[in-house]
Amino acid sequence: MSVHSTITVNLGNRSYPIVIGRKLLDGGFDLSDFVTGSDCLIVSNVTVAPLYRDRVRPNLAGKKITAIELPDGESHKTIATMQTILDQLVATGANRDTTVIALGGGVVGDITGFAAACYMRGVSFIQIPTTLLAQVDSSVGGKTGVNHPQGKNLIGAFHQPEVVMIDTDTLTTLPDRELKAGLAEVIKHGAICDLQFFGWLEQNIDALLRKDPAALAHAISRSCEVKADVVAEDEREAGRRAILNFGHTFGHAIENCLGYGEWLHGEAVAAGMVMAAELSGIAESEVQRLRSLLQRADLPTVPPPIAADDWMRAMGMDKKVQQKRLRFVLLRALGDAHFTASFDVDRLRQIVGSEA
Amino acid sequence: MSVHSTITVNLGNRSYPIVIGRKLLDGGFDLSDFVTGSDCLIVSNVTVAPLYRDRVRPNLAGKKITAIELPDGESHKTIATMQTILDQLVATGANRDTTVIALGGGVVGDITGFAAACYMRGVSFIQIPTTLLAQVDSSVGGKTGVNHPQGKNLIGAFHQPEVVMIDTDTLTTLPDRELKAGLAEVIKHGAICDLQFFGWLEQNIDALLRKDPAALAHAISRSCEVKADVVAEDEREAGRRAILNFGHTFGHAIENCLGYGEWLHGEAVAAGMVMAAELSGIAESEVQRLRSLLQRADLPTVPPPIAADDWMRAMGMDKKVQQKRLRFVLLRALGDAHFTASFDVDRLRQIVGSEA
Repeated sequence: MSVHSTITVNLGNRSYPIVIGRKLLDGGFDLSDFVTGSDCLIVSNVTVAPLYRDRVRPNLAGKKITAIELPDGESHKTIATMQTILDQLVATGANRDTTVIALGGGVVGDITGFAAACYMRGVSFIQIPTTLLAQVDSSVGGKTGVNHPQGKNLIGAFHQPEVVMIDTDTLTTLPDRELKAGLAEVIKHGAICDLQFFGWLEQNIDALLRKDPAALAHAISRSCEVKADVVAEDEREAGRRAILNFGHTFGHAIENCLGYGEWLHGEAVAAGMVMAAELSGIAESEVQRLRSLLQRADLPTVPPPIAADDWMRAMGMDKKVQQKRLRFVLLRALGDAHFTASFDVDRLRQIVGSEA
Repeated sequence: MSVHSTITVNLGNRSYPIVIGRKLLDGGFDLSDFVTGSDCLIVSNVTVAPLYRDRVRPNLAGKKITAIELPDGESHKTIATMQTILDQLVATGANRDTTVIALGGGVVGDITGFAAACYMRGVSFIQIPTTLLAQVDSSVGGKTGVNHPQGKNLIGAFHQPEVVMIDTDTLTTLPDRELKAGLAEVIKHGAICDLQFFGWLEQNIDALLRKDPAALAHAISRSCEVKADVVAEDEREAGRRAILNFGHTFGHAIENCLGYGEWLHGEAVAAGMVMAAELSGIAESEVQRLRSLLQRADLPTVPPPIAADDWMRAMGMDKKVQQKRLRFVLLRALGDAHFTASFDVDRLRQIVGSEA
């Protein structure tokens, strides 16, 4: 038997549960109630499919299942890859009552969700995230999409899943580097709006790094709660939701300048959060507290060498830019982020190494 | 000065006006209030751009305008063409406050709206339809998308415009064949839910065919009202909105089997409406009334030769299929359509020429 907890993302008639626990695969949690019709397409990648795809089948008793494997990696997060999912749906004669299931990390989830959003203008989809990053971040909140050669996630849709099923046991097969990258987003959730959780992470970072199940379960649950609350307030990122992008303006620029996949997303966000904290003008002791926790998680806290011009160009492509003005998520204090166009331009120049 | 009427599509915070009149181009109606930021991208095609693009600029006083031309024709309604719009947006550094303007017929509007829906997960867009079909149908209601080689509009999104501006003077340059194809959708609006309008069309079909401005204005306004009312009831086509697809299950199959562009959409819908009326089991005199009006508009009322198997395969790809059951929009009477899975299978076989 599985023991699980449930967090609800409150979005009116698009509300859905996030189910978190151990032993949910192999039929431990029945997904069939969340499948609209009788047909499912499981989308996974060449790395995850051999590990987990057959273990999802018992969760879909009585449903007709087809499957497709994508190539692995951020470099394949493209419209072309998304089209292979659409082609598969067409080839099987899938209709509006088909349910598309994303099994894998954030890349699989984002591409699959976007395909589900576009196929026949929207079919149901289910997220089964198997990386820490996807469990605490990308599988929750309905953002789906693919990269453009000139910018990350420039093409996509808001499309909420029917359910998110997080089996924390899948983290046993996750490479350490990816676990740490996922912890960057967990730490982010504490840094932007939950100082108590940030303190808990300082106490428990070693347990998390050695994959202690109870510690992981708490970190994932609290992260999902934070994200669900913020998303429920502002589904389409008109305002408050932007705080979830703390560290992401710098982080996306790092990924963009190095080429996607060179640094993992969470690694870029880690260094980006320190830069954003520095730009915030909060006490250096608070910046140091963030830096220190990230360092203990073995995450980068300084960016790679990038020319100042490249920083500015890459940040100019950020989706948060409005009226050609850069805007940032900054900290009023550790645990209290806000989204603002008001920042110290000289300090920004200093941080990105511009001569000014 | 322009004189125009306004119809509102009531969709809560996504409500928008449809502005209908003469002399709206050349600055006759100010669009700048509907432009979110300062930047616009006008998307048109190689046929329409030389006729009307410069005449839109005065409607956007004070805005920074860039433009792109798509190739002309349904065969270009593809993801690849949509990507050229996205590439252009990226190349100009367009951000979330950019407004994308579709200037042209249904193909331009559908592709452009889909690009606007996907770019940064959704930017504002404006419809300036220049064909009768687009004015009475595709520019109203928020359906956007592109074709898949295996089926029409299989890939897309619901994305409502900020405003639809219909300058009926653009119809002066519209080829007669396209005018007639547009009239098929006008007739559809009468046939599905407005018998009085259907009667008006019987009285005024000749005036419409000779492009009488007053007759066109009334036909367009009433069509937009009918469509706006149905869409307001059911934005995402969970139920009633499906009646707008009267004739479309057969019509899409015709387009799919002949290859897109062979018959115009409205021509396929015309023949499809007669087939759907025949399947409805209503009095032959009512079917004949529909057939007769379509014939007077010089529209086809019998389908091209298509093998029964091809019919069934093509209709199986229809988005309205649920649980593998075919469903149709049928008439209870002329002027009263409903969406149903209940129909006479033997009659269907007869209509598509199956031996049964």
